[in-house]
Amino acid sequence: MTEYHYNPLLAGAQPQPLLIVISGPSGVGKDSVLMRMRKLGLPFHFVVTATSRARRPGELDGYDYHFVSEERFREMIANEELLEWAEVYGQYKGIPRFEIREAMASGRDVVLRINVDGAATIKALAPEAIFIFLAPGSPEELRRRLMLRRTEDPAALERRLEVAADEMARLELFDYVVLNREDQLDEAVNQIHSIMIAEKQRVFPRQVAL
Amino acid sequence: MTEYHYNPLLAGAQPQPLLIVISGPSGVGKDSVLMRMRKLGLPFHFVVTATSRARRPGELDGYDYHFVSEERFREMIANEELLEWAEVYGQYKGIPRFEIREAMASGRDVVLRINVDGAATIKALAPEAIFIFLAPGSPEELRRRLMLRRTEDPAALERRLEVAADEMARLELFDYVVLNREDQLDEAVNQIHSIMIAEKQRVFPRQVAL
Repeated sequence: MTEYHYNPLLAGAQPQPLLIVISGPSGVGKDSVLMRMRKLGLPFHFVVTATSRARRPGELDGYDYHFVSEERFREMIANEELLEWAEVYGQYKGIPRFEIREAMASGRDVVLRINVDGAATIKALAPEAIFIFLAPGSPEELRRRLMLRRTEDPAALERRLEVAADEMARLELFDYVVLNREDQLDEAVNQIHSIMIAEKQRVFPRQVAL
Repeated sequence: MTEYHYNPLLAGAQPQPLLIVISGPSGVGKDSVLMRMRKLGLPFHFVVTATSRARRPGELDGYDYHFVSEERFREMIANEELLEWAEVYGQYKGIPRFEIREAMASGRDVVLRINVDGAATIKALAPEAIFIFLAPGSPEELRRRLMLRRTEDPAALERRLEVAADEMARLELFDYVVLNREDQLDEAVNQIHSIMIAEKQRVFPRQVAL
């Protein structure tokens, strides 16, 4: 029987690593989903974002984020150390280039968490990545989640709700939508895991060069 | 926040049922995979094919296949009772139209098992279906599986191996490839289940009209 080397699975090879971009409106629970995925030990390399925002209770520097000062962040921008960055609500967030190099060298699937603007930028850089939009179970759930964040003042809350409405309208940038319903975190994580398994079975793999 | 009715998930509705076509070379184990999927109680409607081939031990009429005589099969062809049919190795197989009507009326995802020629026909009729190619772990595994079938005579075995080689070359018709490795049936079933979950999360659902 002929060999079909254009598909790595049939050639007996490992499939190409995937780049999975997990995005969605502020407050939808991207961090909670990622935390659960990492705790479950799902096999992927997580890209740790740099941020100038304050560390929340329980967050670890270098694991959840690289927590840096505003001054250091501006230095990273000036030195072109970042693949992509944004200032949102007065806080900087960005993807360090060394994180992407490490991720690609790991040989594992790469998962990247980013806001919707950032996802649009990544899509221009790496259209073959897999774009997952995390959506709230309902608009009311999103409001509740944002209100529960003690770090938010009322003006910031209103700003975030407006931005979230705009972000929800950009769903068409994405390949998949996963609902992160209240008290159903595991279902969202399972669906993301299923997407990762399914994408590795593609006859024509989506190969990313970054 | 605006409502996004173009995506059923965000509008709080059930996603559209999928049509999943499971194909692959003769002997790869399509029947075993389907049997396991049905035993696990995965939520889908299975399209029961009509065939003129002899019932194998353990197979149930109306569940595994509709077992009919050659005469009755030719009558079904003449009456246009079949969506698609083929004569392969002197045996008829076909998809009764009433099965498709029942499947669509069920509101559940529909799974259809068919040989590679048949999958090509379904693709012309319903390009929005999801096409999964079940492949053997290796060419040697396929040969072993075909030899183990007591129903095969040596000439039939050689014919099937030749046809299987041609069928393997038609992988590009399909969306996904799943390896059905020896003693790893559950992994194949899990991957198919993941594909079904992932496809229901598409931002732009693949809606079939049949």
